[in-house]
Formats: sequence, C-alpha cells, structure tokens
Amino acid sequence: MKRISFTSDYMEGAHPLIMQRLMETNLEKTPGYGTDAYCEAAKAKIRSACHAPEGEIFFLVGGTQTNATVIDGLLQSYQGVIAAETGHIGVHEAGAIEFGGHKVLTLPHKNGKITAEQIEKLLCDYANDANRDHMVMPGMAYLSQPTEYGTLYSRAELTQISSVCRAHRMPLYVDGARLAYALACPENDVSLADLAALCDAFYIGGTKCGALFGEAVVLPRPGLIPHFFTIIKQHGALLAKGRLLGIQFDTLFTDGLYEKLGAPAMAAADHIRAALRECGYTLCFDSPTNQVFCILDNDTMARLAQKVDFGFWEKYDDTHTIVRFATSWATDMGDVKLLKDALRDAWQ
Amino acid sequence: MKRISFTSDYMEGAHPLIMQRLMETNLEKTPGYGTDAYCEAAKAKIRSACHAPEGEIFFLVGGTQTNATVIDGLLQSYQGVIAAETGHIGVHEAGAIEFGGHKVLTLPHKNGKITAEQIEKLLCDYANDANRDHMVMPGMAYLSQPTEYGTLYSRAELTQISSVCRAHRMPLYVDGARLAYALACPENDVSLADLAALCDAFYIGGTKCGALFGEAVVLPRPGLIPHFFTIIKQHGALLAKGRLLGIQFDTLFTDGLYEKLGAPAMAAADHIRAALRECGYTLCFDSPTNQVFCILDNDTMARLAQKVDFGFWEKYDDTHTIVRFATSWATDMGDVKLLKDALRDAWQ
Amino acid sequence: MKRISFTSDYMEGAHPLIMQRLMETNLEKTPGYGTDAYCEAAKAKIRSACHAPEGEIFFLVGGTQTNATVIDGLLQSYQGVIAAETGHIGVHEAGAIEFGGHKVLTLPHKNGKITAEQIEKLLCDYANDANRDHMVMPGMAYLSQPTEYGTLYSRAELTQISSVCRAHRMPLYVDGARLAYALACPENDVSLADLAALCDAFYIGGTKCGALFGEAVVLPRPGLIPHFFTIIKQHGALLAKGRLLGIQFDTLFTDGLYEKLGAPAMAAADHIRAALRECGYTLCFDSPTNQVFCILDNDTMARLAQKVDFGFWEKYDDTHTIVRFATSWATDMGDVKLLKDALRDAWQ
Amino acid sequence: MKRISFTSDYMEGAHPLIMQRLMETNLEKTPGYGTDAYCEAAKAKIRSACHAPEGEIFFLVGGTQTNATVIDGLLQSYQGVIAAETGHIGVHEAGAIEFGGHKVLTLPHKNGKITAEQIEKLLCDYANDANRDHMVMPGMAYLSQPTEYGTLYSRAELTQISSVCRAHRMPLYVDGARLAYALACPENDVSLADLAALCDAFYIGGTKCGALFGEAVVLPRPGLIPHFFTIIKQHGALLAKGRLLGIQFDTLFTDGLYEKLGAPAMAAADHIRAALRECGYTLCFDSPTNQVFCILDNDTMARLAQKVDFGFWEKYDDTHTIVRFATSWATDMGDVKLLKDALRDAWQ
Repeated sequence: MKRISFTSDYMEGAHPLIMQRLMETNLEKTPGYGTDAYCEAAKAKIRSACHAPEGEIFFLVGGTQTNATVIDGLLQSYQGVIAAETGHIGVHEAGAIEFGGHKVLTLPHKNGKITAEQIEKLLCDYANDANRDHMVMPGMAYLSQPTEYGTLYSRAELTQISSVCRAHRMPLYVDGARLAYALACPENDVSLADLAALCDAFYIGGTKCGALFGEAVVLPRPGLIPHFFTIIKQHGALLAKGRLLGIQFDTLFTDGLYEKLGAPAMAAADHIRAALRECGYTLCFDSPTNQVFCILDNDTMARLAQKVDFGFWEKYDDTHTIVRFATSWATDMGDVKLLKDALRDAWQ
Repeated sequence: MKRISFTSDYMEGAHPLIMQRLMETNLEKTPGYGTDAYCEAAKAKIRSACHAPEGEIFFLVGGTQTNATVIDGLLQSYQGVIAAETGHIGVHEAGAIEFGGHKVLTLPHKNGKITAEQIEKLLCDYANDANRDHMVMPGMAYLSQPTEYGTLYSRAELTQISSVCRAHRMPLYVDGARLAYALACPENDVSLADLAALCDAFYIGGTKCGALFGEAVVLPRPGLIPHFFTIIKQHGALLAKGRLLGIQFDTLFTDGLYEKLGAPAMAAADHIRAALRECGYTLCFDSPTNQVFCILDNDTMARLAQKVDFGFWEKYDDTHTIVRFATSWATDMGDVKLLKDALRDAWQ
Repeated sequence: MKRISFTSDYMEGAHPLIMQRLMETNLEKTPGYGTDAYCEAAKAKIRSACHAPEGEIFFLVGGTQTNATVIDGLLQSYQGVIAAETGHIGVHEAGAIEFGGHKVLTLPHKNGKITAEQIEKLLCDYANDANRDHMVMPGMAYLSQPTEYGTLYSRAELTQISSVCRAHRMPLYVDGARLAYALACPENDVSLADLAALCDAFYIGGTKCGALFGEAVVLPRPGLIPHFFTIIKQHGALLAKGRLLGIQFDTLFTDGLYEKLGAPAMAAADHIRAALRECGYTLCFDSPTNQVFCILDNDTMARLAQKVDFGFWEKYDDTHTIVRFATSWATDMGDVKLLKDALRDAWQ
Repeated sequence: MKRISFTSDYMEGAHPLIMQRLMETNLEKTPGYGTDAYCEAAKAKIRSACHAPEGEIFFLVGGTQTNATVIDGLLQSYQGVIAAETGHIGVHEAGAIEFGGHKVLTLPHKNGKITAEQIEKLLCDYANDANRDHMVMPGMAYLSQPTEYGTLYSRAELTQISSVCRAHRMPLYVDGARLAYALACPENDVSLADLAALCDAFYIGGTKCGALFGEAVVLPRPGLIPHFFTIIKQHGALLAKGRLLGIQFDTLFTDGLYEKLGAPAMAAADHIRAALRECGYTLCFDSPTNQVFCILDNDTMARLAQKVDFGFWEKYDDTHTIVRFATSWATDMGDVKLLKDALRDAWQ
C-alpha cells in the first residue's frame, strides 16, 4: 500500500509549467548571475504584481540564505534583528545570523506572532536603558508571513508594526517562505502590494511555493541596500546560471500563477482540519494556512505513524506531542482522503 | 558637602601595593606580550593558589574581551554558549559573542543563576530534536561567580553543573569578574581550587578587584585551547607591555592578597544591607556579596539621588525602580555612614 | 545573423539526460535536505568513481559557496588558507573567505599554479618566524584543477604538494569547478581516484560541467569535518529540495557520464586554439583545457567583438588585452566554425 | 655586566609624569568607560593640538585592537582596506581584520610606503574591472606614520594620497603607533594638524610613546562612525576604568609633552646610525626615525647577540639577516654607548 506523506511542503519538484519552460530554454545561452533577459522579465512582473514600479528585485536560492543575506545587508555591524522567539532565523538556521555577526533579539510570541506594542516597548526600553551603548542596538524587525505556526498577520497588524518601525527609522523585513499560502488563504487581507507598501524588504518564497528552488527578494524602494549584488556574492548566494531563477519566477508571475498556486494546498488543509475536528483531535496554533498542527497522545501518534509520514513539531507534555501536517500546491486529494481514513483509524 | 558614590566597583584605581610595584619597576626593560618574568611569577602563584600545577594562565585586559576571546577559543564555529538570560555575555557586551559568530543560548534564571537540571534539559532537548542539525549546537556553558545579581553558586551546585557538562563532554567556563567578592563572602564555599577542579576555564577578575585593569584566565588542564596566544592577538586582546598584568597579578597573589581584598567590600555591603532593612527598604535578589539591590519607589529614589550616586538597575513597575549600591575593596566606611544617613533621610 | 558566444562555460542549462530525470521525478515526494534516496545513490556512485568507499559526500549549490563552506569547515578560527594569488577564493568571491573570518595567504603563481616548494617554503618561513604567534597560521592549501587559467596539475605535482601538506599535517583541498574538463583533457593524468588519494577534500563541479547547478564535495576519509551538515546550513548552503542535487549527480555518475562529458568542449577548444595559431594570434597561459586565452590588440578585439561574445580577462598593456574563449559540454561545432571565420576576418 | 637591549620601543613603563598622575589620582572615584573628567580634559587638549575643534576622540588600549575596531567601524561589511603589503594589519595582527570580515587589499611597498598613484590605480582597476561586483570593494586606505620600516610620509605625499581618497569618497586612516617618533624627527613635515586636515581617522600612539598603554583615535570631522562607542565595546576594546587612558593622554598633551617626548629616541637612533656607518655596517630602509635597520652577516650577528638584545627582522639571504635596533623616549645614552662598543667589537 502506498505510504502517504504530509511531512513538509517542499517534497515535490516544481509546478509543471516551470518544468516545461526549463526544458524549452535548456540549451539557450544566456549571461550569468541574473543579468539575463528572463530575470529582467521576471523582475518586471514582480514589480507589477507588487505595485512597486521602482522596486529592486534579487533572486536567491534558499530561505536561510536569503534571510542571512538580507539581514546582513540591512543591519549595521553593531545591530541586531528583532524577531519572535519562534522565528526561523533564531531557531532553525543553525546560527546563520550570528555567523554574520548579528544577534537575534527575541520577543515572546503568540501563535508565532509578535505585536507592534512589543516592538515599540523593546525600542523604548532600549532607548531608556542607561546601558544601551553597551547593548546590541535593535536595527530591524523580522516577521514571517505566514509564521512558522501557519498564522497570519492582518493588514491592520502589519500596518501598526510598519508604523512603529518607521517612527523609529528601522527597516521591517518579512520572510515569505510560504507566502503563496498566505495569499491563497481566505482569511488573509495582506496583498503583495500591501507588503511592498508596508515593508522595507520582503521575500517571495519559491522553494515551498511551486519552484524547484528560489526566493525573490523585493526592496520596494530602491537604494536601500547599496552593493547588494556583492553582498549576495560574499554570502555565497549568487547562482551562476541565474536565469534558472528568472525563468521560474517569470512563470510564477505570469497570469497570476503565484497568487493562485496555493489554492489546492488550502483546500487540502481545510479538509484535514475538518477531519481532525470531526474525529475529536485537538488542533492548535489556530493556523488557517497550509500547515495544520494538532496535539496527539503518543499512542495515537504511534498508530498514525504506521501509515502516514508527518512532522514531529515539539513535545507537548510527557504523553503528548504536537505534530504538523503540511500540504502544498501539489498535494493530491487522494492522499488527503487516505490521511482522513488513517486519522479515523488511529483515533480510539 | 562631599558627594558619595556607590555606582560601581570599578571607580577607584588600584590597590596601593600594586601602584607601588608599578612605580618601582617602571623603568625596567622587559620583553613584551607577557613573556616577562613578572608574568611567569604571577602565573606560578595563581597555579599554586588554584592547586592547578599544570594550569595554563593567560592575562587579558578587560572582562568583555576575556569572555569573547575565551568563548571563541572554546567553541567550534557552529556552536553556541549556554548562559542565563541575565548573563553579562548576552546583555551588556554589545554583541561581542555574536561578533565572533556564536549564538548565546539563554536559559531563564533565578536571581541570576541557572541549574544543572536546566542545562541537562537543554542538552537533552537538543539531542532529541529531529531538527538538531539545523540548530546551533550547545558547545559550552557560561556562569558567573558571583552572578550579575550578586548571588553565588554553592560548591554543591557547581559540582552538579560540572557533572552535567562533563557527562556531555562540554566545557564549563566561569566569569569571575568579581571573584574576590565571592571569595571574601562568608556564605561562599567555592574556593579557587574548587573552580580549577570543577571548571574547564575561568577567569580571576582584576579590574573590579584591586587591579587597575586585567583578568587572569585559568585553564586548569593544559592544551584545552590550542594556539590561544594567537587567538588573543586576533581578538586585539594582547597587551604589548604584558608585564603590567604580570606585576598586578603577582601582587594580588602574593601573601593571599586577592583572597583578603574583598573583606572591606563585604563589611560595607553588610552595613548597607542592615541599614536598608532597618529603614524598611525592600532588598531584592538576595545577594550576599558586594552588590546590594533594593526596590525604591521613584519619589524616594529621586530624594536619595540628591545626595548619593548609585546604579539604576531596572524598572520594577511604573512607580518603582530597582537600584544597586556597589561596594569595593576601596570603599570608605565614612562613605557608608553617609549613605546610611541619606537612606534614613530619604525614607518617608 | 546569429550572434555567437564563448563568454563562459555556464551559459547553457543541463545535460539532456539530467533534464529528463528531473522531469520524470518531478512530482515524487522525497524528504528534504539531501536525505533522499537519489542523494544516497549519487553518493554511492561518486564513492565508487573516486575509489573512496568510506568517503563522505555533500552536495552544495555553487562554487563560491562550496569554497567558503569547506574552507571554514577545515580551518580553525585563527587559521588561513594558502592559495595562488590568482586563486578564485582570493579574487572573485567578494571576500567570502574573509566573511568567515579567514585570511587568504597568497603565493605567486605560474600560469595559475603553485608548487610544493612554494608551500613548503611558506610553512617553513612561518615556523621559523619569531613573530609567528602574531601571524595568521597557515591551516590548509587550496588549489584548483584546472586552474583559473585552464592549466592542470600533473599527478606528480599533486603528489608532491600532497606530501608537503601531509608532512605538515595540513589538509589539501582542490576546487574542481571545471573538473570534467580536466578529466577529458588528453594531457591530464590525475583521475578522480588520484584526487581522493592525494587530497583531503575536493569538489566535483556540476554547475560548469553539465548540471543546472550543484557541486559535490568529497571528503575521502570520513570524520574530517565534524558536523559539516550544520556548517553547511549555517552558511545558507543547504538546499531544501536536496534531491535535485542527488538526481543531477546520480545522472552525471551513471555510465561514466561525468568523465565523458568534457570531450566536446575539448574538441571545440582544440579547434579554437588551432585557428588562433593559424591566423597568427598569440595564445597565452598555455591552457590545454576548455578555456582558451589569447592576447589581442585592442583594435582587433573591437572588430571581433562585433560578431562574437567572449571574456575580457585582463589588460595586457595599453594597447593589448587578454581575452578568453570558453567552451563547454554543450558547445556547438557550428558556432566554433563561425568563431574561426570571425577570427580570420578580424585579423589584419 | 649589564645586558643591554634595543629589541623594541615598548620595553619600559610610562613617562614619570604619567606615573605621578596615576599615583595622585589613584583613590579618586570616577565614572567608568571614558565618561570621566580626565578623559574630557585629554580630549580637549588633543583637539587643540590637532587644530580639530570638532574632532571626536576615543581612547583604546592597544594598536591591533585600535586598527581592527576603527577599520571595522569605517568599512561596510563587503569592503576591504587598502594597505602596503608590509602594513601591520596584514602581517602581524593575527588576522584581526579578517576576523571582522574584511580583506586587506595589499599593494607593493617601497621602504614600507605606498603612493597616491598606486592607490589611484587600484581604484581605477577596480572600477574598470567587468567583474568588480564579484570582488572585494576597496573601502578605505591604511597607512602608518612612521611606517613599519621607520620611514615617513612627507606632507606632500600625504596630501596626494588624501586627494586621491577624497576624489573617490573613501576614508584615509593613519596608524600612528609610533607617531611621537615621527613628530620628533627633523625630516618630518607632517604635524598633528596636518594629519587632522588630511586624514579621516588616525590614532596617536601611546603604548610605544610614553604611556603604559593606550591609543587615542582622532576622527577630525564628527559623525564619521555612528555608534563608535558600541563598536568599541563589541570589539572588547572598551576599558572599564577609562580614566586611566584619560589621565595618560591628558599628561601627554599637557605642555606639548607628546611632541617633545621622542627627542631622546631620535638622538639615540642618530648615534646608532652614525656608529653603524662608522664601523662599515650596511643600513637599510633609510629610516630616519627611532627604528634603525641594518644587514648583518650571520656570524657578526651571532657575536653581537652575545652582548646585546635586538630584533631579528627578516632573513636577507642565506648568510645575512636584517636586524632592528629600536630606541624609545626612555633610552639611556649609557646603553647607546655600550651598543656602539659592542658594534665595534663585533665587526671584523
């Protein structure tokens, strides 16, 4: 019997349209490092989708790399980055931010989110601390949309955070590794144009959202990071055959594919949430996007694991574990049905 | 009227015996970088005081510098250092640890202290985390004795922490910026020899303990940090006229001066604690060493500040502040008496 | 008329067999970060091709990234890497090595190569320097095969360099960005097995040698770099969909493809060299591989540039420039013929 | 018989006036980290001596530390520092610049000096290099006055270099570790005011010039390095008892002491140069300051070393060595006479 997997959202290759374009262009000769026409076309489309006609776009390969490079580009050497204590940069990037010399200044989170008030308080506490010159200066804020827990910032929340950052002349950066799943979520009211208007930098995730790999950094207002190309190279983040990124993002931003891509993932996740509730499982983190979290007692978890692969998120208590089911643009509804059966069977 | 100050324990110069030796030797010619006979003599005395006949001793200039250099020497590039969230390295060293590429892995504290259980749990959680290879590996533990809150680890506590670290083959490092005040404290049962037996590295603070400046790093078992001399130089921490450190520590370790030096500070701090209690002030952190913390309502604080300089530690709530009175080897008992009067006058 | 280009060897996509396999596997689900079966298969084939049954293999995305990560993994924090002054790491990697805290210790080159004698002398000079503890300690040697100038180390030369490094217990690392073109070159006598026997680390270049992207690091003797997976992650160099690298290298190492792949590039380069000599152009650097260098007077260069894209390598003198023609596994012989015509036309 | 030493210029303690002031002020209480009145007074005097009424002054402890901190403060993360290949930062600072992430971009020297033309050419070559965005961007220039070889930049030379730097909007920094010996040299025509006018940053060396330790960084035009205090702390370079530096530099800049201090060193060095010439020794590097270099055949060197300590500078050839005799503000003329005798005796 086929083993089904909901372990993560980067288990498949790329959207078929992307593969087709990569095949069609394979033996073309183009100049390297993102100076080709495919990259130019992709950048134009992204600018347009973001309503950021002056925006600078850079293509990098992966998420940790993008975070480390953008954050190092935005910060002065003596500054740190404000983030939720659950933020990817502080937990699962193997110290890539510290490798660049910067401290992650963590704030307690609620379902993966932090608030404008928390950021304001951190900045005021810093400003009022008699020892502030002996401390790491907060130099930017980092959010993810959706968060590591699948939750979303509303436009109102993001606007408040943006206001605080601007009042303190501090850049705001959003990690959009799973941005397509935010854009496809009915609860979401933050568009690409909103991100461009409210943030100083953000990235549009490709790896988890239909590309083989690749993340598109958007700097809505040009000139924010001088010599960013060189910083990318210095971080080992410059792809020689840059057109591979251009072709992928050009495809993702043709006919609004990126904004539609997440719909099947949302449908699948909604089905899984409904199935969990029906069986009596306890959902957690209140995620409306493609990551579904629930608390399993360890016996149930063991039974379920005989048929399904899923993510072990964190220990809940001595007898329970939080697990994650992730869907993607490529999730097969047949697999979702098998998962529902397995969830029913595992429940006792 | 003379303004009195209890702001910190590094406000005076050096113990008179040190100044005398610096004067006597001033025009001697010695080789640089700690290769002189004074450094050798000081090292021999420190080895003896620590019952560490094979120990390696290195002299550096200041505390932040020493922490950054030792920690960078002990860690592999992908490792972080475990510390209390109040640890000096995580709060008041301006990101010097991150500048070296390392993350500070913080644990909640109790009066500035962390426990063997907490360290054990962090190491087990790391070992059991399926994502551990994507995380910063804990590579050492950092304590301070006394802590930033003036509290002390007992020999029993330190032994437990040492056992956990050794079971996990992870070095234990103790920041002894104020070590003389621990050694002079009646409550203390951790000797220099205990530190040498239980830790892999520690430093004997000079700057706050009778020297003009200088910290003596002790590596009880030789060979722990290969090429540490070069690492010190790389960190800009190698003093050209190294003998200045040798002469100071030779003096501090002649006739047990270092271990006696803290006594006046303890006497002064005990008087201040008694005066605070008598007047009805609320002490906090339960510090038995040379740092005395208490909670003042902001009006009282303002009245007291008209006569006395002290440290503003942290906001307690909207109407109260935690303040610090620090004594030192040089504290004048006349000043203590004036402080007692001022405390009485400020109380209403 | 079709414009022809010999600017570089990373202008096309991937070998058709690779594209076919990527298409076939596109919607499979596999675990991330290189833990999939394709990576395992590719590693087994590389081990076999290298006669390194115990070898550890890691897949990274690009060359600068690979150099920075391997070098940081091999060096202690206070060590530097020995390289030719023309070495890629010292010139065209935007300071990625220094970003990791390490100095590039340069040696004068001859046609891009350095010798065992030079390395021996540098190590002896260091060992004999009274100030060596104030200097960056040489911690490894870096070569490229072929070099940046297209030249090759012979097995005899590599054996001598390897002997010097081993005598000094210092790892030897070879950058094989263009290794397929060395392996396909009739002059070459260094096999993959020789590299595995003589080096401590090397990488088999994919980006310039038939892959879309990707470099395979080979550590012939296991355990050389503890926690290298985490170091890769820390450097932002861990590809989420690691199987993309596995599939590509599995294809490249099936039926000896990698070792045959360079043959068309060699044939094309040989034709170009012959054409240049015939016309009377001055070749330089004596490269036998896929990079052909020649000295053009600037007028000739301008005429040629009207029809052909090529690389401007460096200024030779006020009226001459060194240019590069690079061929690849995908070079079309029709284009070579057009280049020959253009070379003839430009010559006056 | 007394053994005499001319090994270096940091073998003695401090000028007697400094020791006296340190004694007098020893038990005063002052706030830490350079916020005391002695530092303020010293800064005012240095501003005055430099004719830089708006200048910012910072006191650090040692030379390598000062170079690493200032250079890291002046450079963007992706920039490197231009220096002579003999510059202290590239050779004898154990990679402290690379530790901060920056490359040293070296130029060939002549007697330790580089020229405006060389810097201009490096900047033009960089600007014209098609691959410049893949290279380390030159971000500042580093000189030393006097150089590591004891030679001096003339005001004309420094003016030319300053013009090139300003034309390229690139800061110029001068390492003045031995500046007092430049100021005391009759050949010198570069005053403190010239340095302040022509450079963007320089440091006035104390360690080798009459202080126990300490270097005074001068930023003639304020605001050049925002948050430099925090950068100093981050580098572990902030002295807790900052007044020690204030008192020393206040003394050095009272009654022009710093500018007179080098005179005895110059007189001694001139005597040694005359003695060497008289005996027939070969001087080298043409140094007019307190460092005297000469080429000795190894037998002569061995004979001389029986009576005198001096510096082994570098191997000249298989049978000759370049050695250094360094004088200082404290050099005893009796010792110079003994050295002259020894030189005469060793000559055969």
